[in-house]
Amino acid sequence: MRAVWLENQVLSFRDDVPEPEMFEGEALVKVRLAGICGTDLELVKGYYPFKGIPGHEFVGEIVQAPGAPQRIGQRVVGDINVACGKCPDCLAARQHHCKDRRVLGIKNHDGAFADYLCLPLQNLVPVPSTVSDDAAVFAEPLAAALQIQQQVQIGNADRVLVIGAGRLGQLIAQTLVTVAGQLTVVARYESQQALLSAHQIAWIPESDIRQRAFEIVIEATGSARGLAMACQAIRPRGTIVLKSTYKDGNGEKWPLHFSSLVVDEITLVGSRCGPIPAALAQLEKKRVNPSSLIARRYSLNHALAAFQDAAAPGVLKVLLQIAP
Amino acid sequence: MRAVWLENQVLSFRDDVPEPEMFEGEALVKVRLAGICGTDLELVKGYYPFKGIPGHEFVGEIVQAPGAPQRIGQRVVGDINVACGKCPDCLAARQHHCKDRRVLGIKNHDGAFADYLCLPLQNLVPVPSTVSDDAAVFAEPLAAALQIQQQVQIGNADRVLVIGAGRLGQLIAQTLVTVAGQLTVVARYESQQALLSAHQIAWIPESDIRQRAFEIVIEATGSARGLAMACQAIRPRGTIVLKSTYKDGNGEKWPLHFSSLVVDEITLVGSRCGPIPAALAQLEKKRVNPSSLIARRYSLNHALAAFQDAAAPGVLKVLLQIAP
Repeated sequence: MRAVWLENQVLSFRDDVPEPEMFEGEALVKVRLAGICGTDLELVKGYYPFKGIPGHEFVGEIVQAPGAPQRIGQRVVGDINVACGKCPDCLAARQHHCKDRRVLGIKNHDGAFADYLCLPLQNLVPVPSTVSDDAAVFAEPLAAALQIQQQVQIGNADRVLVIGAGRLGQLIAQTLVTVAGQLTVVARYESQQALLSAHQIAWIPESDIRQRAFEIVIEATGSARGLAMACQAIRPRGTIVLKSTYKDGNGEKWPLHFSSLVVDEITLVGSRCGPIPAALAQLEKKRVNPSSLIARRYSLNHALAAFQDAAAPGVLKVLLQIAP
Repeated sequence: MRAVWLENQVLSFRDDVPEPEMFEGEALVKVRLAGICGTDLELVKGYYPFKGIPGHEFVGEIVQAPGAPQRIGQRVVGDINVACGKCPDCLAARQHHCKDRRVLGIKNHDGAFADYLCLPLQNLVPVPSTVSDDAAVFAEPLAAALQIQQQVQIGNADRVLVIGAGRLGQLIAQTLVTVAGQLTVVARYESQQALLSAHQIAWIPESDIRQRAFEIVIEATGSARGLAMACQAIRPRGTIVLKSTYKDGNGEKWPLHFSSLVVDEITLVGSRCGPIPAALAQLEKKRVNPSSLIARRYSLNHALAAFQDAAAPGVLKVLLQIAP
């Protein structure tokens, strides 16, 4: 089958990759549409030593399901964490934190930038018919955005600042605009600013961030600079949510002052994957409009050009159209 | 009057210091007993450029109170944060985080290692007659220990690890032993271990810390090494409380991996001063026994020897007996 292949930080397009092997309880999914995410770009830069097919945002169709033939033909999105189901974390309903987990397109499990992928049936969630492929392909990052509200209570008395208006920042902003008392997004690029304005979401340039002014700050840039802004913007006893892929050990000086964290009694919350069904519910109710993020789409055969496009500053979502 | 004086990181004993000047709304307190805390030792090392009289743990007696003569003679302990009362933080009941605050013996306000100190009347809380001076002098650090429970919900299903069994670690352990489902303290010195055992609190050496095993970890050493242990001991989605005086920029490499914080969805909570009335209530009900921490007591005239004693490894609370 066709696939994007990542090995030693070199990305290639191949048309001779064997179809993935199904483990017990898994299904074979024919991928229709997949999205390129910041984590994919970081994997290419060596964030995690992954070898294989990247890609973890997708919508596809179940084509083989030995354990559940009735599910063949379902249009699905997927939870990317393949957990062991037996360890203390799994038994405590923290499957996303299973120590032995494989993660689609990120860790020990081939991903979505290919004609086919495999995932356990229980990870695959049917997409309501009213949700288009262009919306459903955002289920995974939208779930990640919604995870913030699973971890931090955000109410109508809270002034919330989102730092970063890229792919994830935009989704976060869309999920919070009706929840927060006041929402402001720090946006650097015109394309980002225009999209926020189109959704009636207030944005400011970096230079306009007020200090010690926000109950909740969501850092969605993954950069030391973004974290420094978050530390300045947060008010005492406020909460900073770290919502990005952070590259430790890349020589950047991380500007976290533990003394300030203690003196100002700041809470720092790391946040990762979220609930796919909640994301689908938001999409079904049209509470968010992720398709507005789509910058361009490429065929799988042009995946390398798509990666290059997605890595350019200010570019929002780049999709790979894998099957019609 | 007699006082300990700190200037340019040099500590001296003086008997010619003028009595402190009362601002409006303040009272003059004759100090009876004061405790030396880790923050005092850090001030001497230059943690914050304080010039004047250090000391913020005390019990004393109101001897002048222009605004409230009926309070003269009261035995009191005090909230060390002197807030402006007018800024947004003060108006939102976050006086401990007032940007213009003075802090007794720490920032722009002379402290308790002297015959007299001044504090606003509203900061001074009467000590119940059943609470001895030896217990009351712990009100401030005990309040700091109780602040953890103001910020983090700790219940009988939680496995809690306290890293560090020094002055503050011991108090934290005493406040949590009946609250946590399971409490373990990492204790390095025999004196610390013996005191924990005397209170039926389980302790372990550093080498016995189980990885990814605790819902809540309280870092009470203020060291990079302690934080590294906390990051190893915490389970995914757990909470690390930073409960110490942290010295940033001292050349130590701080071992916080932002990628792990995000991937494991860890929460980090900075925690500082707490509610003095709650501490007095605990003391009145004999829920904690802080006097068991007292290692030695010195007269104010021998304060420099007392500081030296308090700085030695494993020494618990050193007191200054200032008035009989």
